[in-house]
Amino acid sequence: MKKIINNIEDITAQMVSGFVKTNAQRVKQLPQTCAVVRTDEEFTAVPHVGIVSGGGSGHEPLHLGFIGAGMLSAAVAGQVNTSPTPDQIYKAIKAADQGQGVLLIVKNYAGDVMNFEIAQELAEFDDHRVKTVVVADDISVEDSAETQGKRGVAGTVFVEKICGAAAQNGMDLDSLAKLGQSVVENTKTIGLALSAATVPAVGHPGFELQDDELEYGVGIHNERGYATEKLAPSKEMATELVEKISKSFNTTTGKYAVLVNGLGATPLMEQYIFANDVLNKLADKKIDVAFSKVGSFVTAIDMHGISLTITKLADGWEEYLRQETQAIAW
Amino acid sequence: MKKIINNIEDITAQMVSGFVKTNAQRVKQLPQTCAVVRTDEEFTAVPHVGIVSGGGSGHEPLHLGFIGAGMLSAAVAGQVNTSPTPDQIYKAIKAADQGQGVLLIVKNYAGDVMNFEIAQELAEFDDHRVKTVVVADDISVEDSAETQGKRGVAGTVFVEKICGAAAQNGMDLDSLAKLGQSVVENTKTIGLALSAATVPAVGHPGFELQDDELEYGVGIHNERGYATEKLAPSKEMATELVEKISKSFNTTTGKYAVLVNGLGATPLMEQYIFANDVLNKLADKKIDVAFSKVGSFVTAIDMHGISLTITKLADGWEEYLRQETQAIAW
Repeated sequence: MKKIINNIEDITAQMVSGFVKTNAQRVKQLPQTCAVVRTDEEFTAVPHVGIVSGGGSGHEPLHLGFIGAGMLSAAVAGQVNTSPTPDQIYKAIKAADQGQGVLLIVKNYAGDVMNFEIAQELAEFDDHRVKTVVVADDISVEDSAETQGKRGVAGTVFVEKICGAAAQNGMDLDSLAKLGQSVVENTKTIGLALSAATVPAVGHPGFELQDDELEYGVGIHNERGYATEKLAPSKEMATELVEKISKSFNTTTGKYAVLVNGLGATPLMEQYIFANDVLNKLADKKIDVAFSKVGSFVTAIDMHGISLTITKLADGWEEYLRQETQAIAW
Repeated sequence: MKKIINNIEDITAQMVSGFVKTNAQRVKQLPQTCAVVRTDEEFTAVPHVGIVSGGGSGHEPLHLGFIGAGMLSAAVAGQVNTSPTPDQIYKAIKAADQGQGVLLIVKNYAGDVMNFEIAQELAEFDDHRVKTVVVADDISVEDSAETQGKRGVAGTVFVEKICGAAAQNGMDLDSLAKLGQSVVENTKTIGLALSAATVPAVGHPGFELQDDELEYGVGIHNERGYATEKLAPSKEMATELVEKISKSFNTTTGKYAVLVNGLGATPLMEQYIFANDVLNKLADKKIDVAFSKVGSFVTAIDMHGISLTITKLADGWEEYLRQETQAIAW
């Protein structure tokens, strides 16, 4: 295993420390935690509903990179592929609550759902108003070993951006929870991998693909997908994902947002070529893409692969996606 | 070779097309070129010196991702690791010139230097005022097969950001050329690789490293470096690069900017751990880091590696680095 790390047990702590040091003007780390909170002037000057997210590490820039005005108030990082503990999430909720309540955005994995739920109960016991949106956008599986229902993957970024912008504009907690839920219901993602990720504590790739193989439907924790096939040109991969996702929408009317997301070790060159093929295919199908974005936002450590997320936009969502944010990774 | 591409010969065209499609509100592609130019309102509303850069593809987001108010007016993409042709650069200069002249920012490689020089002559013949800054920040080599003098690598981003911000603030062409030259003289970079890049037309990694080896001093075109050593913890890699760069400055007084740059296939997790080690080491040496940034900005296709850039800041440069920009990759 070749990685630029020190001790495996210190990966999350050192990564969070590196992030906080290079963003010291905008964020702080809560003592004895891997929870990071906004400190910019706007955060305290303009009270609004706090938005808190988090999960296991290995998906960077998610969630740390999305802290900032217009997106997250705080984020909590667990060990690699492991939920943060409830006490850390609870501290993040307390730090994020400006008196308007806090919305939790949680990817649908058993460990995350459980720990965020406990943290919510702890916070409610302390009179914080808290609501939770569970993101479940990966349509390649219905259930897996780690989830009941669909997994939460790259679509999480759209949920965080749309809810973050709406919160900044003053939307109340109940409305934000409904908005987040609606974004989840209208967001669909499928990923593919050319090679699996190497979890540091494991030391070798999570599954093996031959030199001429790719895997459709992978998750961000090295879950295998729905089909192992021969390596194909980008156009064919784009067609597979566009067809599967567009069929799952039942309609092609209205406006859509598209996220082409690198899974960790995928060069931007490949991401833009794939995006070009995706957008050509969507244009052929007369699907109206009002907003699109390309980059590595929700990764699977060093997986070489890509995912496609499509969100059917409701009124105002495009504006939320375009609204300014101080989050460095958006 | 596993890559998300179609035909090798179409890589640059399709990548540029993907970029332009996903940034259609802000940029346009000049006909029959891989040159891309700003189209936002501010570009024409506030005349200022145009900033144009470019070079071979494979270093994304450089340069396309740095087009936008406060950084580049236009960028030109050549084939992978190959300079763009003079006619395309010339068209970019013409499109970028708002009557105040154009500054070219060129990485120090023989092909780029030659083609940008020809383009400058063509443009001057057409009465455009043009100046050039050649970036040569890689202190790991003095000369190489492709350069006279040092190579131009990740420090290019700081040159583009500082000159772009100054141009936006109304600095004239002669002063911008002097500013750019001064940034180059005060910027030093060294890279390291755990594995080489696979150039698509070649089909295999440019050099071989054993499973327990790393290479110090690599370039962004798969040039080998100054030492092949045993794989080491991030802290030791950080120490090697910090020591070499800080010694080359002759002084440790004043303020510095730091760029930790992933080389293409390096997860952000590793970049932040390395940044943490770099900043700890600089703090030990009482070197005052006023600005730092972490991410994949100047890549070598799919190289697994990282580079460290340190710039000794003069008055006003920190503010230029912090100034708002619309460039999506900053």
